[in-house]
Amino acid sequence: MIFQSKKKIKVGIIGGAGYGGTELIKLLLFHPKVVLSFVTSRKHTGVKISQVHRFLRGTTELSFIEPNIETLPQETDLVFLATPHGTSMNLVPRLMERMPKARIIDLSGDFRLEDPELYRQYYGKEHSAPDLLEKFVYGLTELNRSAVSHARYVANPGCFATGIIFPLFPLLRADAVKESVSVVAVTGSSGSGELPKEATHHPVRAKNFKSYKILEHQHIPEIERFIRDSFFKQKESHSNTQGNAAVENRQHQRQGNGPGPRIGFVPQSGPFVRGIYTTVMVYNPEIDEEEIRAAFEMLYKKEKFVRIVDGSPEVTMVYGTNFVEVAWACRRGFVVSMSAIDNLVKGASGQAVQNMNVMFGFAEDEGIRFPGMLP
Amino acid sequence: MIFQSKKKIKVGIIGGAGYGGTELIKLLLFHPKVVLSFVTSRKHTGVKISQVHRFLRGTTELSFIEPNIETLPQETDLVFLATPHGTSMNLVPRLMERMPKARIIDLSGDFRLEDPELYRQYYGKEHSAPDLLEKFVYGLTELNRSAVSHARYVANPGCFATGIIFPLFPLLRADAVKESVSVVAVTGSSGSGELPKEATHHPVRAKNFKSYKILEHQHIPEIERFIRDSFFKQKESHSNTQGNAAVENRQHQRQGNGPGPRIGFVPQSGPFVRGIYTTVMVYNPEIDEEEIRAAFEMLYKKEKFVRIVDGSPEVTMVYGTNFVEVAWACRRGFVVSMSAIDNLVKGASGQAVQNMNVMFGFAEDEGIRFPGMLP
Amino acid sequence: MIFQSKKKIKVGIIGGAGYGGTELIKLLLFHPKVVLSFVTSRKHTGVKISQVHRFLRGTTELSFIEPNIETLPQETDLVFLATPHGTSMNLVPRLMERMPKARIIDLSGDFRLEDPELYRQYYGKEHSAPDLLEKFVYGLTELNRSAVSHARYVANPGCFATGIIFPLFPLLRADAVKESVSVVAVTGSSGSGELPKEATHHPVRAKNFKSYKILEHQHIPEIERFIRDSFFKQKESHSNTQGNAAVENRQHQRQGNGPGPRIGFVPQSGPFVRGIYTTVMVYNPEIDEEEIRAAFEMLYKKEKFVRIVDGSPEVTMVYGTNFVEVAWACRRGFVVSMSAIDNLVKGASGQAVQNMNVMFGFAEDEGIRFPGMLP
Amino acid sequence: MIFQSKKKIKVGIIGGAGYGGTELIKLLLFHPKVVLSFVTSRKHTGVKISQVHRFLRGTTELSFIEPNIETLPQETDLVFLATPHGTSMNLVPRLMERMPKARIIDLSGDFRLEDPELYRQYYGKEHSAPDLLEKFVYGLTELNRSAVSHARYVANPGCFATGIIFPLFPLLRADAVKESVSVVAVTGSSGSGELPKEATHHPVRAKNFKSYKILEHQHIPEIERFIRDSFFKQKESHSNTQGNAAVENRQHQRQGNGPGPRIGFVPQSGPFVRGIYTTVMVYNPEIDEEEIRAAFEMLYKKEKFVRIVDGSPEVTMVYGTNFVEVAWACRRGFVVSMSAIDNLVKGASGQAVQNMNVMFGFAEDEGIRFPGMLP
Repeated sequence: MIFQSKKKIKVGIIGGAGYGGTELIKLLLFHPKVVLSFVTSRKHTGVKISQVHRFLRGTTELSFIEPNIETLPQETDLVFLATPHGTSMNLVPRLMERMPKARIIDLSGDFRLEDPELYRQYYGKEHSAPDLLEKFVYGLTELNRSAVSHARYVANPGCFATGIIFPLFPLLRADAVKESVSVVAVTGSSGSGELPKEATHHPVRAKNFKSYKILEHQHIPEIERFIRDSFFKQKESHSNTQGNAAVENRQHQRQGNGPGPRIGFVPQSGPFVRGIYTTVMVYNPEIDEEEIRAAFEMLYKKEKFVRIVDGSPEVTMVYGTNFVEVAWACRRGFVVSMSAIDNLVKGASGQAVQNMNVMFGFAEDEGIRFPGMLP
Repeated sequence: MIFQSKKKIKVGIIGGAGYGGTELIKLLLFHPKVVLSFVTSRKHTGVKISQVHRFLRGTTELSFIEPNIETLPQETDLVFLATPHGTSMNLVPRLMERMPKARIIDLSGDFRLEDPELYRQYYGKEHSAPDLLEKFVYGLTELNRSAVSHARYVANPGCFATGIIFPLFPLLRADAVKESVSVVAVTGSSGSGELPKEATHHPVRAKNFKSYKILEHQHIPEIERFIRDSFFKQKESHSNTQGNAAVENRQHQRQGNGPGPRIGFVPQSGPFVRGIYTTVMVYNPEIDEEEIRAAFEMLYKKEKFVRIVDGSPEVTMVYGTNFVEVAWACRRGFVVSMSAIDNLVKGASGQAVQNMNVMFGFAEDEGIRFPGMLP
Repeated sequence: MIFQSKKKIKVGIIGGAGYGGTELIKLLLFHPKVVLSFVTSRKHTGVKISQVHRFLRGTTELSFIEPNIETLPQETDLVFLATPHGTSMNLVPRLMERMPKARIIDLSGDFRLEDPELYRQYYGKEHSAPDLLEKFVYGLTELNRSAVSHARYVANPGCFATGIIFPLFPLLRADAVKESVSVVAVTGSSGSGELPKEATHHPVRAKNFKSYKILEHQHIPEIERFIRDSFFKQKESHSNTQGNAAVENRQHQRQGNGPGPRIGFVPQSGPFVRGIYTTVMVYNPEIDEEEIRAAFEMLYKKEKFVRIVDGSPEVTMVYGTNFVEVAWACRRGFVVSMSAIDNLVKGASGQAVQNMNVMFGFAEDEGIRFPGMLP
Repeated sequence: MIFQSKKKIKVGIIGGAGYGGTELIKLLLFHPKVVLSFVTSRKHTGVKISQVHRFLRGTTELSFIEPNIETLPQETDLVFLATPHGTSMNLVPRLMERMPKARIIDLSGDFRLEDPELYRQYYGKEHSAPDLLEKFVYGLTELNRSAVSHARYVANPGCFATGIIFPLFPLLRADAVKESVSVVAVTGSSGSGELPKEATHHPVRAKNFKSYKILEHQHIPEIERFIRDSFFKQKESHSNTQGNAAVENRQHQRQGNGPGPRIGFVPQSGPFVRGIYTTVMVYNPEIDEEEIRAAFEMLYKKEKFVRIVDGSPEVTMVYGTNFVEVAWACRRGFVVSMSAIDNLVKGASGQAVQNMNVMFGFAEDEGIRFPGMLP
């Protein structure tokens, strides 16, 4: 907490044309502690933001500028990268050089893994800045708040990863997961981005439901890493020298057999626009219902953005908001844990702003209190 | 196969006002081997079917008649019961008396379980005709065809049960399921029936996604029974006298610890109208991908209504049809198996007609060949 | 403008359980100039608001109270009536007695017409407080701002009326409408309220489109009245003594042949949740495109909540907001004028808050600046 | 009626990859009087139809062939052109040469107008086969049946044109339209074709409603032509020599002031997949309700595919079918006339098959009797 809360910070966005960037623009324009000083877009360079997104007409006179790192204003306190995977890793080193004092929150997947080899495996390309991987803190705010508050560089979690970690974490805390855990999560069409493609063609999407990237989605390794770091790091460091353990661990990880439970994750796409609904299931007849309840309450009861609900989370209850709904059930030997989030807010831009709030000592819900609407 | 295929059979429907009944009326009106001789509806008694359902105008002059068993035409070859749970069990004994030669296909849940105690547990009422339970054959056509072909009385499977058994069965056949299996299945709003209720209120349902009856849906015991009968009956009869085994088995079953794997099932409701998408997942690193493939091909390759697809089944591909799409994937130690059906056709009325075709020796796809539409 | 802007006003809502009331609660809870002191609901008396509407959890500790006028807090500056048609007219006289200093904004249709006979004709019941009809000012804020700013009692416009008056008014101003005008407007399902009914049953609504109350919707007379008051009152008073003119005018009106053009309005329901899209069309080959443009710009160019757009308004651009999009086109002798609003915000609760802002001298967009979201 | 009904005709489709072509393939594969002998697709040449459209798996072994006129089988009785506007006019002359005996039904807009100048104006390109324009008969089956039955070449109507002509025709027949008529019609997203584009991007389309091509849609001139040919041709030929009248008439038409009423048409796009809902409105206080009723009954009462309904047509009632629902209302001096069709069936491929049935003397509803489904 280095800034006084009365002073506004200067913030820029690189990559403001997509859905994530647009949501971020909106949140920052209305954020009382922030001056949005620039937004880049290669496609819309020179065009007014309010002309591209007319729902923002009247809120800003800014125009999109070229994504040229060398000409960006140096007196920037924080840069958000809302760029595609593979772009952020090329921009970050140059950004660090150009604005050595600026903090960075990267919304892409480029800095969420610690192992460049895993990056290559899941993102299909060589990581161009592997040395910087360890400089980034994973920004799952509620569960990594202390690290975020001291971070200069934050890797904002993936939308599915956010949706999954919330219901999975209490099960791990309660030691309910043994060998493996089954995860199914369904996302709305806004998760596919602003460019029309076959998977978001309305005539098909409007009444379809299907799975994709079955058991091989790129958010799996970031979940595994965060779980490992949170639950299994100490255990392993007892039996090894720290360095060797890390290396060995990474090798295990790549083969899908590191410490921690196996995660089987089936991503699905549903016929709605915003939202991710996640179902986590384990079989464990020994688990005590009260242990699950206690884990949920300990972790989330005081959290402003997390609602523990009876029955089931509902996507419509978090529509357009930074809230997370979680619920759980124990019956017939199974433990089911569920969550609902808005993929563009808590799953992306809202959580990025939440991380900013924590990094700069603002009220954690500043600018992201919007409670949604019904219906 | 006792009827000659040239003669048309006389068929009646009890309970023709709901979505299941309406779909059945349509299928039977266009079925070349069938004369639809009566359809009952308490609500619409005396009103023309085409007046209640104007999309059927021009196809029939029939009017709904009173659901009074005593006055139904006795010369009926087959009666479909599209009545709610709890109604069928009261009608069946009287039907059997009134029309001793008629066959019966019950679309409700009343005759799918063998154990009246389980019925009470899952349906919340005492079974009024427990002696008749064993007379009914479970009508999952593809996997119980021989029994159906000789059956006088068929219990048509539940929509979720149909969606689940198709992808689950090959995993059991390949011996891929050890202790437990995780199942998540999402249904469209037509599954809730034709009466407006909160869960199907458009302003909410249109953008919502949630779970319900978590781990306690009434289709669980019928799936368990069919699996037990198909895979685990012989094993158990070795170690006991048959009678004792059955009794003991039932007791286990009620407590959720009979033979066969534990099934954890989370039913969900999604923002679409027709369709059920099912995801079955087990962790089993020993399983060989080829064993799974072989099981799917052995069971389904020759089936007219089952499509084994690459990647994922898609709800839109079975929209309005009696087809089932199945697919599977093996990675990272997990086996995932999926299906897509239309809940009102393969999940209810279409499978009922398919069962009728098998019972009466017609071509199995007679009257239910409609391939759907795209988009 | 009698209140100083620093002091918060005390506000209550009668009828807070419906969609309009819920939206109002949310807007008022976040309004910086307002203390929401009570919300009534017969159905939910004694229950916490945040329990009924869990998306509001964390924002308020208020519970719904009984809608008993006699026990409502007397020190109330403003009461919103979000009650059904037919209820407001019974409550208003008692409210005026109980809280003589309180202002009232009625969101129902009870005080929008001046003629009780027309009320009877369109609402199907006798008006119980005909003497109070003239005390209410029509709250179409942008087009009646001066009257609203001095009003004690405001009749908040109907959702369709709002959607129609915005595009119709400039055509009248430009004298483009001759004998008649054709209006088609389609509403989302939230317009039917929070109670499930056949018209909002998801399996049907999700892919349906139809018309209802064709040429006889109850919002027609309030549009006609506002147009008459705005454009045709003076003309008529020249040729008659004022009193007689009013009487005669009313009689004409009831028969649909008062001064001003005939309005043919076809309301329609579409398969979406929020929004009303309105299309107004006249044939008038003499009209000059520039006259239309001038009328739109004169009326709306400076309005914060009105966006004049090229091409077509879009419902998605005003989703969840108090904004109105309007556009127009002149070709082949026709003039087409269109609008898009959110039926629950600008078409109901948002405009009610806007009226409150004007009545109490607050910034007109205080508390209702939310610009929406994309997508 | 030159073919005997027992013999199957040989039919080919040029352009079978789009939504119209796909629907046509399905209808023809199940048509008892037809052998589908070839389907072309540039994109999918050599690929099995059932591989591209897996919902057709099991129904055909055909593969798409190259759209090379010179190698198409000459013994073809009928060729359907499901090609884009601008392609058909290049193919038709070569087709006529290659298969002089084959009949042609063109689903594009290329042969619906008689005036190449109007074509240039509305389709933005020079017509390459203007001499052939007069050889094509307009295939609005119910209202042009006699001409279709003798036609060798049929121009299948546009989807909007079909939706509009059905409710407009009776008003003209009843002489209810004076100077002008207002038309608003909303289409589902399948009308935009199978290629993803911005207007059909699910995140936006799913909750949007907007207008496009306001007052300038290319279906306007084909409606005007058909109306002129049906109602106003004789009148004009009295006052001129036939030839001059035609020329003069065309010139008028281009300027939008030929004989017959002015048509103001606003096309709109709604958030559903299949269907077009049309609203036609005129102001005419002299019109007698009975005259309207008589016109509707005279024109449509005996039509198999037209349902005159009370209240409003409903899109869901014609979903996936060749049926048209029409309704009308007279109040307050206005006449409103409405229709609902499925844009891909009655608005395209279904009507094409209906025209084929009429041209070849088959039962008019052969192969297109599917009554739809509810829900």
